Amino acid sequence: MSVAPESSAAPSVAATGTAYAPTARTVPTRSKKRAAYDRELVHSILDEAYVCHLGFVRDGAPVVLPTLYGRVGERLYVHGSTGSRPLRMAGEQDPGLPVCLTVTHVDGLVLARSAFHHSINYRSVVVHGIAHQVTDADEKRLALDALVDHVVAGRAADSRPADAKELAATAVLSLDLAEVSAKVRTGGPNDEPEDLDLPHWTGVVPLRPGYGPLVPADDLADGIEVPAYLRGL
Amino acid sequence: MSVAPESSAAPSVAATGTAYAPTARTVPTRSKKRAAYDRELVHSILDEAYVCHLGFVRDGAPVVLPTLYGRVGERLYVHGSTGSRPLRMAGEQDPGLPVCLTVTHVDGLVLARSAFHHSINYRSVVVHGIAHQVTDADEKRLALDALVDHVVAGRAADSRPADAKELAATAVLSLDLAEVSAKVRTGGPNDEPEDLDLPHWTGVVPLRPGYGPLVPADDLADGIEVPAYLRGL
Repeated sequence: MSVAPESSAAPSVAATGTAYAPTARTVPTRSKKRAAYDRELVHSILDEAYVCHLGFVRDGAPVVLPTLYGRVGERLYVHGSTGSRPLRMAGEQDPGLPVCLTVTHVDGLVLARSAFHHSINYRSVVVHGIAHQVTDADEKRLALDALVDHVVAGRAADSRPADAKELAATAVLSLDLAEVSAKVRTGGPNDEPEDLDLPHWTGVVPLRPGYGPLVPADDLADGIEVPAYLRGL
Repeated sequence: MSVAPESSAAPSVAATGTAYAPTARTVPTRSKKRAAYDRELVHSILDEAYVCHLGFVRDGAPVVLPTLYGRVGERLYVHGSTGSRPLRMAGEQDPGLPVCLTVTHVDGLVLARSAFHHSINYRSVVVHGIAHQVTDADEKRLALDALVDHVVAGRAADSRPADAKELAATAVLSLDLAEVSAKVRTGGPNDEPEDLDLPHWTGVVPLRPGYGPLVPADDLADGIEVPAYLRGL
């Protein structure tokens, strides 16, 4: 029933080709068949979610915070106030802040005849690495555009870019996609043969994310039309 | 645009009354007005999500894994194979495994006129604490029922309970709700006064999770009806 965990520490390995190179900590001890390293699969899982869960260590204890992110090729960006804790820590620590960035989609509820075999269908990506503060102004702008376009594709070009004061107030962290794995579960329940005659309904409840009707801002002026990139949602 | 982080280490504090007692690490440095400690709010956010993101420290580095969970009163449970890393670590470490368990709902995309003020509407809960292995057989059964009922309320009573072998193969961790905070953002964008005349559409794109049609298992026998607890989904 659990989304099985991964295992063991290992050095970061540069990924080349169509797949990320597995490392000791991106090869799970359990449910190995669900692990995947395909670059396109990883990108698709990352691009479809709105928030990631960013983990870091503070005073020896784990901290996991939800945050927006963006992707540019093989690099992820997260951002926040220059006063925020992980962003400050990444700037102060040499060579950066060790993080684990995780993205998960829950695609279905898997109802087996036995409690033990209940599960969920899901797609997740786990990225291990060192987050660095982005100090280059051009890369910072690129990252902020990616963050806005990650919320709605096409939106960065249809909003006022950050000015100098806003840029100065925003810290951006980069995290390279090098030590990366995906895990995917699909399909129906896997009941034990001796349970097949039990009288319980069994199957999958698919989850379907969707959008509600747009809510214009109270101060939206008359005559401003809904842009094309929102009409498809 | 970010979901602002929280701050600073502090000892765990027992929560009593209708709210959790804030601690140094559950009081955010930023967006203080979004932080909440109300017990009912925290419970509602926890009960509505399917997976949490569980963070722990392994070899000094953070690890964040998605996993199912259940709640019984002021205690959360996660589970997994007895061979899985965090579950073993919690059993081996004294007094347990320091974890951070985070649950997030993304409720809407907040499109401001300026890139800087883009945001999301969300509800999140962050739980800091020490996870302990559940060794008591009765509590373990209670936890597993809670995990199944968390997937679909009413399902535990309509599936075969774990047998002795399955119970032995399953490790369960408990985490008390003591050092807990919620964060909530609602409402529209907060643009700068000088941006109000910009020609960009502005408002909120609500996200609406939903369910697809049930997918019966291939081996579901004829004549087994969809139970009442699934018909409402």
